[in-house]
Amino acid sequence: MRVAILIFDRITALDAIGPYEVLSRLPDAEVVFVSEHAGMRRSDRGSLGLHADRSIDEVTAADILVVPGGPGAREDVVKNPRVLEWVRDIDRGTTWTTSVCTGAIVLGAAGLLRGLDATTHWAHLERLRDYGANPVSRRVVEQGKIITAAGVSSGIDMALRLAQIVAGDRVAQSLQLWIEYDPAPPFDSGSPAKASAETIRLTRSMMTPR
Amino acid sequence: MRVAILIFDRITALDAIGPYEVLSRLPDAEVVFVSEHAGMRRSDRGSLGLHADRSIDEVTAADILVVPGGPGAREDVVKNPRVLEWVRDIDRGTTWTTSVCTGAIVLGAAGLLRGLDATTHWAHLERLRDYGANPVSRRVVEQGKIITAAGVSSGIDMALRLAQIVAGDRVAQSLQLWIEYDPAPPFDSGSPAKASAETIRLTRSMMTPR
Repeated sequence: MRVAILIFDRITALDAIGPYEVLSRLPDAEVVFVSEHAGMRRSDRGSLGLHADRSIDEVTAADILVVPGGPGAREDVVKNPRVLEWVRDIDRGTTWTTSVCTGAIVLGAAGLLRGLDATTHWAHLERLRDYGANPVSRRVVEQGKIITAAGVSSGIDMALRLAQIVAGDRVAQSLQLWIEYDPAPPFDSGSPAKASAETIRLTRSMMTPR
Repeated sequence: MRVAILIFDRITALDAIGPYEVLSRLPDAEVVFVSEHAGMRRSDRGSLGLHADRSIDEVTAADILVVPGGPGAREDVVKNPRVLEWVRDIDRGTTWTTSVCTGAIVLGAAGLLRGLDATTHWAHLERLRDYGANPVSRRVVEQGKIITAAGVSSGIDMALRLAQIVAGDRVAQSLQLWIEYDPAPPFDSGSPAKASAETIRLTRSMMTPR
């Protein structure tokens, strides 16, 4: 089972690495990191280089497509007709087409979300309407073969759900134990429904590039 | 504030990227990925290349040190005197020295856990005794400036706790919201205390290299 993970400059790394860490442990999974051109891409924080082993020209099919987000997704990839065409082409042959965070905006720009419920990072949710999708505030949204996940860390939950679908409860539970995903954050402010108004304000200000 | 994240071949990528995603968003944080030699390292699943921008010779000080785990940590780095000496040297100047997963075994091999409570991936917990540490089944264990976290995904929780310590509740809560860390796994089998005996058996068998 081939899993293609699209990467690009200014990617939010955890969007990709969360699902990678789960899906790469599925029995018989083969994961490939793919980008418009093969080589190193830099994360949105600048300090991390992730390597794309293959260019989009070299990857013509996948069983699972994962499109992560980040400023590079919502500002650059959405305007890149070559990459959007690749996303559409790959989607034709996938069993599952997925996104994490603002990767959903890339799926939208590729025309794959029209008429569907979808989610993305809470701060960009309304933008899904631009692509004919119906924004939903849920951690993971399944619509046929299209699965969209909320912001950044939600890709871990999405991938465990996908593991459950493709390999069953026992394997998915084992993957959860393998990566010891027994979350215990020191606070409960991980969604705008739970965070204080003050936290939401500070987060928006921290998210704004200076 | 400089954060140095040690990487190496056969690293478990999420061990590093979880803390990176949180700590790199701290105001004034500068993150550097460092390895014995600068250049691309491959993850434990083989399919991902992570780039070390700096060699250990180029990084002589850090405020926060993060040592991730993986087979490369517990089998290779623990036997590499140059890297262990670097870990000891950096630790002398850090405000916080941290590990995720079997990165704790590297801290142990460097002699930094003697007499301390510490944690690591549940499947390797007892090995901490080899280094004079007292193994503790907790997600995050704080002992003075040494903070160890449990398996793989626990680095996210550890980093949020560290963010709370260094930047206060408001900033840490905002980082949690920024990365939308509102976990909702489809199961509750993320620790050996919660998983079924059958899941633990299957996980151990999946974790054994063929």
